Formats: sequence, structure tokens, C-alpha cells
Amino acid sequence: MVSKERAGAGSVDEPTDQLALRRANLSRTLRHIRTNGPRSRAAIAAATGLHKATVSSLVDELLSRRLVREIGTEHSGAAGRPGRGIALSPDVGAVGIEINVDYLAVHGSDLTGRTVIEKRVSFDAKGRDVERCLDDLTQAAQRTLAELVRRGVTPVGLTVAVPGLVDVARGVVVLAPNLGWRDVPVATRLAHGLDPDLWIGVDNDANLAALAEYTWGVAAGTDDLVYLTGEVGVGGGVIVNGRLLRGADGFSGEVGHLPLDPGGDLCGCGRIGCWETKVGLAELVRRATPDAAYGLEQGPIPDPEERVAEVLRRLGRGDKAVAAAVAEVGRWLGHGGAILVNLFNPRVIVLGGYFAELADHLIPSAQANLARLAVASTAARCHFVASHLGFTAAARGGAGVVVERMIEDPTAVSLAPAPTLAAAR
Amino acid sequence: MVSKERAGAGSVDEPTDQLALRRANLSRTLRHIRTNGPRSRAAIAAATGLHKATVSSLVDELLSRRLVREIGTEHSGAAGRPGRGIALSPDVGAVGIEINVDYLAVHGSDLTGRTVIEKRVSFDAKGRDVERCLDDLTQAAQRTLAELVRRGVTPVGLTVAVPGLVDVARGVVVLAPNLGWRDVPVATRLAHGLDPDLWIGVDNDANLAALAEYTWGVAAGTDDLVYLTGEVGVGGGVIVNGRLLRGADGFSGEVGHLPLDPGGDLCGCGRIGCWETKVGLAELVRRATPDAAYGLEQGPIPDPEERVAEVLRRLGRGDKAVAAAVAEVGRWLGHGGAILVNLFNPRVIVLGGYFAELADHLIPSAQANLARLAVASTAARCHFVASHLGFTAAARGGAGVVVERMIEDPTAVSLAPAPTLAAAR
Repeated sequence: MVSKERAGAGSVDEPTDQLALRRANLSRTLRHIRTNGPRSRAAIAAATGLHKATVSSLVDELLSRRLVREIGTEHSGAAGRPGRGIALSPDVGAVGIEINVDYLAVHGSDLTGRTVIEKRVSFDAKGRDVERCLDDLTQAAQRTLAELVRRGVTPVGLTVAVPGLVDVARGVVVLAPNLGWRDVPVATRLAHGLDPDLWIGVDNDANLAALAEYTWGVAAGTDDLVYLTGEVGVGGGVIVNGRLLRGADGFSGEVGHLPLDPGGDLCGCGRIGCWETKVGLAELVRRATPDAAYGLEQGPIPDPEERVAEVLRRLGRGDKAVAAAVAEVGRWLGHGGAILVNLFNPRVIVLGGYFAELADHLIPSAQANLARLAVASTAARCHFVASHLGFTAAARGGAGVVVERMIEDPTAVSLAPAPTLAAAR
Repeated sequence: MVSKERAGAGSVDEPTDQLALRRANLSRTLRHIRTNGPRSRAAIAAATGLHKATVSSLVDELLSRRLVREIGTEHSGAAGRPGRGIALSPDVGAVGIEINVDYLAVHGSDLTGRTVIEKRVSFDAKGRDVERCLDDLTQAAQRTLAELVRRGVTPVGLTVAVPGLVDVARGVVVLAPNLGWRDVPVATRLAHGLDPDLWIGVDNDANLAALAEYTWGVAAGTDDLVYLTGEVGVGGGVIVNGRLLRGADGFSGEVGHLPLDPGGDLCGCGRIGCWETKVGLAELVRRATPDAAYGLEQGPIPDPEERVAEVLRRLGRGDKAVAAAVAEVGRWLGHGGAILVNLFNPRVIVLGGYFAELADHLIPSAQANLARLAVASTAARCHFVASHLGFTAAARGGAGVVVERMIEDPTAVSLAPAPTLAAAR
């Protein structure tokens, strides 16, 4: 009574026609291989409940789209005869680029998840107007895409990560206070300088980093997870029940300007006592190295990495005043963390940006204050952990979004059969 | 190629055997009727893609389980011949009971959503020990269930709503500070005094009220919604992308003890500057009617409804000091609201409890402060609205959870065919 073909669809939305059904089964096949590693056609059929003939046809299409390849190793599932293994293709990939106040980070990876390119370059976003920033961003994208092609990987898409509110559907940065951007149509602007077939997305940096943490990070697979990044601004991304929380407009997780202290300092945003004024990089530098501090009114912090390195050096020398200053920042990290725990009840709060670099010194006081202030702290376990993904978490998440899109609908990818296509365009 | 029978399942989890498939199709049929109103078998078949013979068999089973009934009116879908209408049954129902610091609220409804019983009685939870509370709760449940049966509705389940952290899976109240409860096995305890076939659940009151708002309230169907209830405590429930946010342990949405003012007052919980100390009922009473105020140290507020009524009377007389006091509470409502908006980006914040009663006086200053403090306020629309569900929102949501459970798996309901079953047990 149950059609085996039909049993393969398995998505929330019922495919309503044969094309949608085919798409769903192509997607299902790719996901199965991604989750379980290279498999023979017979093993895929046995595990998915699809007919063997259907699987053969699906694999043929995925091969012609260059999304999978045959590998020599013989693989077989419990129920299947040995056959050639079908693996995700290393010939197709995606790019993520993060633009932040003081750097650009790029990440390029292939379908298998292998990192092909990863780097960060200093960049002064505040010192350039929006148009100049977009020119530089376009050039960085062109260079990264070309580099990926040189390494034999055809990119199908690009996501730009931005520290601000993003209208994901339109690819517009609505507001990025630390960049000084408002209503900037990043996707449209980048499209002018890039291959018209390339899919271009724009998303919030911390949201993308949260996805990267959920997929590849220290707490990968933790279904309720908050990611925090400490930079000049403080960003947040929230995974709820295994999915990125977006909210009604895609503006959720804006942790930097939580008003936590009505008696506190003026924030760069014009409000009082925002979390950023307690745990942002400027506050860390001001507290921990007052002899070398820059006020907000003096513009961006010069060479932020050097500032964090200096704090670490002083901590290493056993400087008690610096340790006390960092602990105080940690207490405020726990204070805001308690709000996140009360509201989201996550299992883990992953710390990125400078928080990760100073994690050993911040976490003890942060965790103690979290335990003191969070209502459910005796009943719920939630702990701070340092991200291991380094400076390209957001860019990596951006590439991941493109890959996810490709796996969700493999028919949306238009690649010529020859691997030299991109160069030939 | 696509089996029509199979096409009916449409759930995220693939049914893996015939029983699961049958269950999924029974559920799908019930949902279709609930969403679209009474339908003929032919219309159900046309809309769901199930075979007519399959639909007839499914409807027969639902009739024998008394979850649907045939009604005289002829209904037909566009593609179907006229036939007798199949409607949800008014013979089967569910109960929700909310226990709070100063009242018990009960709600009984049938499968069609019709309210059969709804009332609230004063109750002094703080004046009784836990055992006595549970005895009273059991008696209230017995009375409500018996009353439902007298009115011709057989109850299949009961949900208890509690203002605190609830382990939903085990039916245990982990912590309810305002009741003074810790680790109370409510479900097990109630089961002793009730029909052993009855399903008994326990859940957080504000979570249940949020579900009720999402289903029947003023902002019903708004996929990103926060519900706040102002009582002695302040509770919150969050709907994210059309689903209740639960978090890793089910402890999400604990808004009452968000630490918002490090320079503020001592809260009953022992922390400083919790949101409850700014917008809880005790603070409203203290600010608005200082001549008649009760401090926290004096125990629960006597007759809270009378206190709110007195505030309303004074506002009605144009008392400027009272208006200023209420506006100040409203400002703090907006302050905490900004945190919720920054983190969840909801479209609506629904106000329940005393917030709803004073909504006209609280919302102007709350909305203004929200606009000032929320980062995305210029880009995202989020407004405060007063709940229309009144004092039984949580209890109603509790009954709704039972009905949802019944619709999700109609085979879990064991009802004898005769409508007098419950009385005969």
C-alpha cells in the first residue's frame, strides 16, 4: 500500500507534484550521504526505503549535476550488495565573507565540508564610506571565488556576514551601528560585480556563527545553544530546538544593546547601560589596560588584536589589577548570560571573538554570576564554553548556508558538466 | 507512482509501519476537519488526497472512538459529491486547572473548542502546605471532571498550570517560588485521586497561556509572539515561529527574575532589581496606592483584584499621582519589553493578568519606552496588546494541550462507545 518512491520524500511540506517529489528525493539522498558518509546505491536504497531503480536514477542526476562522485572504495549497507561508493563532491563549493568593523574574514569550503580557503585581513570599515566598503567587499569576493576555482572547486554561492540587522529576504542591511550602515542593499550591489548565476545572500554575523557552532563547533548538535561574540560590538545568535531563531523580521538575538544597567554608562548607540558597555572590547581595554585605553569618542580601537594580546600578557605576568578587571567583565558576562538562560534555557553558551581568547579568565566569574542570577541554575545545567572555530566562524557559517540551500534543492544548482566551467564563463 | 493512501500522512516523522500510517491519517483527518469545519467524506478525500475508501474507514474509526459525529447538514467540497457532514464531537473534552498564589482557575471544553466550564475561585496557596494544596487541587479536579460528565462531555485528560519551573516529561514542579514549592510530583499525586485512564499533564502557566493566546487570543496565529502575565509574580511564554519555545529543560520564558537594575530593590527571590520588583502586582500597589500598600515582608497581597480595582477607580477619578505611578510601571514594562524584542523579535507582546486590566494606562508609556530602548524599533513593528482571554488563559491553554495530544494520536484515546461511560466507571 505504501509506495516506496513516495516513502522517500520525508519533508514537512508534502510534495504536490512529481517535480517536487523528485527534488525532495534528490535532497534526501544528498542528506543521507552527508550524514552517513559514502554509500553504495544499494545501501542508500535500503536505508531510505526508495526503490533501487529510483536511487540509481537519483544518483545519475546528482552525478550529472556534479554534486556527488563515485569513489573506488566498495561500500555496502547491511541490506545491500557491495557497489561503488557514492560520496559528496569536492568539486563544488561555497564562500562566506564577514565584514566587520576592523577586519574582513573569508572562508571557502566544498560540499564535503573541507576548508579550502580561510583568512582574515585587517580592514577599517569606519574609515571608508559605504560605497568604498562595498567595492572592497566585491573585490574580496572576486578574489576568493577565483581562488576557489583555481583550486578546482566551483562556487555556487556566497553569503556576506554583517554585524547588524539584516533583511535576509531582500539581502539588505537595515542597520549596522558599528559600521555606520543603514538600508544598504548589499546583495544587489555585489551582484553587479559577480557571476550572475551565483547565489548571493546576506545575514547577521552572529546568526551565521551560531549555525557554524551548531554544525562544526565545540557544542555541535546541542539543540539549545546561544552563541556570543565579543568584538567592538557584542553579537548573539540563538539555536532553539535545533533551528536558528530568526523572529518576525529576522532581528532576533540582538544582545549587544540589552539595557542592563539604568545607572550605567552611555553607549555608542545613545542608550544607557547596554550590555556592550559592560563586556564590549572597548570596555575590556578601558578596564584592563587603562594606561592604554581609548574612549569611544576617540573612534575605533586601533589594533584590537594587539590590545587583547596585551591583556593576556599582563595576565600571564600575574598582574592582579588586570585579573580583577577581567573578572569584572566576566561578572557582567554572567549577568547578561543569566538573562539569556532565563529566557532561552540553553544548554550551552558558546563564546566567540575576544571572549574565546580570554575564556580561561572570563569564564570562572561569568559562570559564578550566572549561577547566582539565573532562576533555573540549580535545575538546569548551562555552561559557558569557548569557541574553537576561531575568527572565521561567521564566514564559515555563511558558506554552510549556501551548502544547506544546495542540499535542500539540488535542482536549483546549474553547473555545466565540465569542471572547468567557471573559468570558461 | 504516488500511493494516495501514503500521501495522506504528511508528518515530519515518516510513519514506519501500517499502524503508524493509520494513526497519522486519523490525525490528519481530524486536523482537516478542525481547520476547515464539518466536511463530507468525499470533500475530505478530495482535499487530503486520500482514497475515498480510506477516508470512509478512517471516519468509521473516529466515529467509534467518538471523536467525530455525523451532522445532518449536507456539505461538499468543490471536488466531492454531497454527503453527510463529519464534525468534531462535542461529547469528548478536556480540562485545564491553574493553581496560582491567590486563586484556582478551571476551564473545561470539548473537542470543538466550546467552553463548557470556566470559573475562578479564591485560594490561598501560601497559607497551606504543599500536601493540603495538592488535596484541594485534586478535589477541584474531581469536581470539574464530574461537572463535565454531567454536561455530557467525557474528559480524556487534564493539565495543571503552575507558576514555576516544570519538568513536563515527569509532571514535576521543580521550583515555584511564589507557591513555595520545590520538586513536587504533581501528576503522580493527582493520579491517585482520579480515573487511572485520565491523561494528566503539568506545565508552566504562562507557557499554557501563550498557547491559548496563539490559538484563540487577540493575536491568534501570530507566529512570533510573547505573552506576559502580571500577577504577584510576572510570567512569560514565548511562541517562536509558530511553536512554544521550551528550551533545553522546559524552563524558557522565565521573565519575572530578569536582573534589570543592579541598583534596584531586593526581590522576594533574594536577587536585586528583578523585573518583578518593577512591574509585579506588589510594586504596582506600592507605587499607585502607597496609603494601602503591603510590603513583601507582610506576606501575600490581600484581595489583589480589589487592589487593582482601587487603582482603576483612582485613575477614573483623574488622580494624577496614581496616573504617574502607573505610567512608571508602564515604563518598566517597556524596558523589559525591549529586552524581549531585542532577543526574540516578536510581532506582538500580549499582556495578561493585571497588565490586561490596566492596559489602557500601562501601554502608552510601555510602548514609548520600548521604542526608545529596542534596537530594531524603527525597523521592526512590535506592539503591546491586552489579552481578551481573561483570567483562565492558562487553564484554557491546558485543556488545549490535551485536545492537541488527542488529535495528534487519536488511537491513544480509549473511550467506550456509550456516552455514559465515564459515569459507569
